[in-house]
Amino acid sequence: MIKMVNEKLLYEGKAKSVYQGENDEEVIIKFRDDMTAGDGARHESMGQKGYLNSILCAKIFEIIEEAGVKTQFIELTEPCVMKAMKLEMIPIEVIVRNIATGSIVRKFPFEDKTPLNPPLVQMDFKADEYHDPMLNDAIAKALGIATQEELDKLRELALKVNEIMKKMFKDIGIILVDFKIEFGKDKEGNIYLGDEISPDSCRLWDAETMDMLDKELFRQGKDDEVIEAYQEVYNRLLSDEEKAKFN
Amino acid sequence: MIKMVNEKLLYEGKAKSVYQGENDEEVIIKFRDDMTAGDGARHESMGQKGYLNSILCAKIFEIIEEAGVKTQFIELTEPCVMKAMKLEMIPIEVIVRNIATGSIVRKFPFEDKTPLNPPLVQMDFKADEYHDPMLNDAIAKALGIATQEELDKLRELALKVNEIMKKMFKDIGIILVDFKIEFGKDKEGNIYLGDEISPDSCRLWDAETMDMLDKELFRQGKDDEVIEAYQEVYNRLLSDEEKAKFN
Repeated sequence: MIKMVNEKLLYEGKAKSVYQGENDEEVIIKFRDDMTAGDGARHESMGQKGYLNSILCAKIFEIIEEAGVKTQFIELTEPCVMKAMKLEMIPIEVIVRNIATGSIVRKFPFEDKTPLNPPLVQMDFKADEYHDPMLNDAIAKALGIATQEELDKLRELALKVNEIMKKMFKDIGIILVDFKIEFGKDKEGNIYLGDEISPDSCRLWDAETMDMLDKELFRQGKDDEVIEAYQEVYNRLLSDEEKAKFN
Repeated sequence: MIKMVNEKLLYEGKAKSVYQGENDEEVIIKFRDDMTAGDGARHESMGQKGYLNSILCAKIFEIIEEAGVKTQFIELTEPCVMKAMKLEMIPIEVIVRNIATGSIVRKFPFEDKTPLNPPLVQMDFKADEYHDPMLNDAIAKALGIATQEELDKLRELALKVNEIMKKMFKDIGIILVDFKIEFGKDKEGNIYLGDEISPDSCRLWDAETMDMLDKELFRQGKDDEVIEAYQEVYNRLLSDEEKAKFN
C-alpha cells in the first residue's frame, strides 16, 4: 500500500516517520500505529491509529490554514501518508492549556479541572535524553533554540491555533482541554505549524459526558477504548463525503 | 545573647527564623547555624554559620542599597539578629546565572562552566511540597503569584543586583557564578529585595584557584570545609573595622 521502499528516512519519531519527498522542499510523513507513554516506558501498536490520525490531522491542518495560520501540510496522498513542506523543526513543544489537568496539576498547585483564562502557554524543550524539560525564554535563548522574536511568535501562533481549534471542536460537541504543537522554519525563516495535531497530541473531552476522547485513555491503561475514542472524533469532524474519500 | 524569648515567631525557614519586630512594620530575622541540602534530605548544624552569614548579608545588603536597589535590611542589631522591614514575601526564588553549572547543566544541554551572556534569569516557585518547580510567566500569573509587571520588575532588579554583586565580588578576587534572591512587597506594593544573600545562596569561586567558597561544599559532602570557606569570604569582604564591630 505505501510505496516508500526506496525512500530515504530522515527522521523516526515515536508515532511518525519522516521521509525525503519528491524534491528538496518536500517530505513524506508516515503516520504509524505506534503509541507510547510514560517517557517511552509503554509502547503498543494500535490498529487504525495511523489511518485515523493522518486523516484527522489533514482535516485540522486544512481548517487552521484556512483560518490564516500557515502549516506544513500539502496533501494527504493516501491514508497514513502526508506530503508536507520540508522544514527545519524548532525543538520546542508548545503546549496550550484551557483547563488545568495532567502534569500541570501534579507540578503546581492548580486544582484539577480549573479553567485557565487566559489560556496558559508552556514551552517544553524537545529532548528525550533530558525528558523534555520546561523552558523559560532565557533558557531557550541561551541554548540557541529560538530568538525572543521567534518565541513571541510561537506563543502568538499557538494562541491563534487554540482559538481556531476551540471553535472547531466546540461545533462538534468536544471540549479542547489542552494540546501540544510544534513549529518549523522554511529557508527564509518563516514559521509554519508542523508535525501533527490529532487525539495523540490533544486532550479532548466530550462536552456532554465529559468522556475522554484522546491518548489519555492509553496513558491510563484503557487501551481497548483508544481506537473507539479516536473513531468518535473522526466520525464527528469529517463529513460523509470526506469519509468516503479514502474508503 | 539573643533576647527573643517573648517574641512571636512568624515564620521558620530552613536556615532562618522570622519574628515579629518592635512594631507592625518590622521583623527580626534570626540567622541560624542550620544547613540543609537535597530538598531537605540532609540537615546539619554548622557552628559560626549564622554569625558569618548575618554579617555578610548585612554588608551585601548595604552595598546593594547604596547602589540603588531597595532592600528589606534595617540594621544588624547583633550577630545573627537582623532588624528588617516587614514585607509580604513573593513566593519566587529568582535565580541569576553568570556561568552554567549545577541543576541547569543536569536539566539542559549546557556544558558545565559555560559562561552565560547575557546572564540567565530563572524563577522557581517557592513551594516545598512541589519541590520548587521552575516557573514561566504564564504559570506564575495563572497561580496568582505575581503580575506581568511584577515579574518584569523582578527580572530587572535581579539583573541589577547581579551587576552590583559581580563587581563587589570581583574586587575581592571572587567570581559570582550564580545566586538566588527573593523579593517582597510593602503595603503599597513597592518591591524590596528581601530574605538573604550569603554563601548559602550564591555560588562563589576563588578567581585564582577556582576553589568553591559557598554551600556547594556542603552539597558535595565536604562539610569540614564549609565554615573555612564562609570565613574566607567574610575575611575578604569586611574591613578590619567592620570585623571589630561584633568581636
